[in-house]
Amino acid sequence: MLRLKTTTDPAWVDRAIAHLDEVLVDHAHCEKKAASMALTLMFRYPERGALLRPLSALAREEMQHFEQVLDHIEARGIRFRRIGTGGYAARLLKAVRTAEPARLLDTLLCCAVIEARSCERMKLLAEGLAEHDAELSRFYRGLLASEARHHALYVDLADHLFDRAEVRRRLDAICAHEATVLAELPPTARMHG
Amino acid sequence: MLRLKTTTDPAWVDRAIAHLDEVLVDHAHCEKKAASMALTLMFRYPERGALLRPLSALAREEMQHFEQVLDHIEARGIRFRRIGTGGYAARLLKAVRTAEPARLLDTLLCCAVIEARSCERMKLLAEGLAEHDAELSRFYRGLLASEARHHALYVDLADHLFDRAEVRRRLDAICAHEATVLAELPPTARMHG
Repeated sequence: MLRLKTTTDPAWVDRAIAHLDEVLVDHAHCEKKAASMALTLMFRYPERGALLRPLSALAREEMQHFEQVLDHIEARGIRFRRIGTGGYAARLLKAVRTAEPARLLDTLLCCAVIEARSCERMKLLAEGLAEHDAELSRFYRGLLASEARHHALYVDLADHLFDRAEVRRRLDAICAHEATVLAELPPTARMHG
Repeated sequence: MLRLKTTTDPAWVDRAIAHLDEVLVDHAHCEKKAASMALTLMFRYPERGALLRPLSALAREEMQHFEQVLDHIEARGIRFRRIGTGGYAARLLKAVRTAEPARLLDTLLCCAVIEARSCERMKLLAEGLAEHDAELSRFYRGLLASEARHHALYVDLADHLFDRAEVRRRLDAICAHEATVLAELPPTARMHG
């Protein structure tokens, strides 16, 4: 369903679990950035009525997840802090064409792919943490459904606004690009590291 | 409680009621911008833990209001569209000093004043619309409490982070500046026109 071209290296899960502090802080930033991205689209395309309400609801949900991750961060005595971006999203978004309406289509599909990868990684975290940290495992299992729903929402919005065959073609190309981006990133304990 | 230096010219209410289409579209944009401003502060000050959760919750509430205004816009067959900013917020924010932490204090207080002015105007709309449009009047009456709460939240955040006497002094200066900004704006059918 998620259409990703690669599955995450199992070494990522070990790395993430060994550096949960960093993963949680990065995850909180990811939720905030996801909300911000939805808002950016709402500002950029006010005349695209079909986008506004779903993206607004999505942004609200991402903000709520941000607050939930903060709860876990604080409960563990971790200090939320500024951390450099891992570069994943910025590199992925280089696939976005500059002319409209291609720019809109590609941006929606990049958002879809980011949500898909988050979903895959949260599933791995939920499974990997099951024996180490039941509470956090449950938290990530709970988020999976939302991430999958957000992935589907972005693809549905693209299907609603563009020719479905074109959407499939671009989604395939962007998924291939995402696999390259991920393979080229240095190994880090980030959600998309 | 709202500490504004001027009350709105009654002519504004007549103008707004005569151009409800424009007021509603502008109002929707205002809610979106208010959410975006809260997010901007969250991105700019990740290390200010006291800001994060309240601003995230505020952003969620502004997005929800955005969706509610969209409901009214659509129910009336109005097309949501891009409209130029009225210039109110941009001019108001010129009062923000550039060096930190003064920049943070001033931004919080400008946000507080914007919420206060919105609250005053929504009250006027609720009253002015009572005979013309009971449904919209009820809607604006319902939003009043949130706007007043958002105003108080921004002042409380400033009080939490800064010396209270300094907060009062700057709030007084920014309210005086706001009165000048409003007096100099051309009369329009905008929330802050």
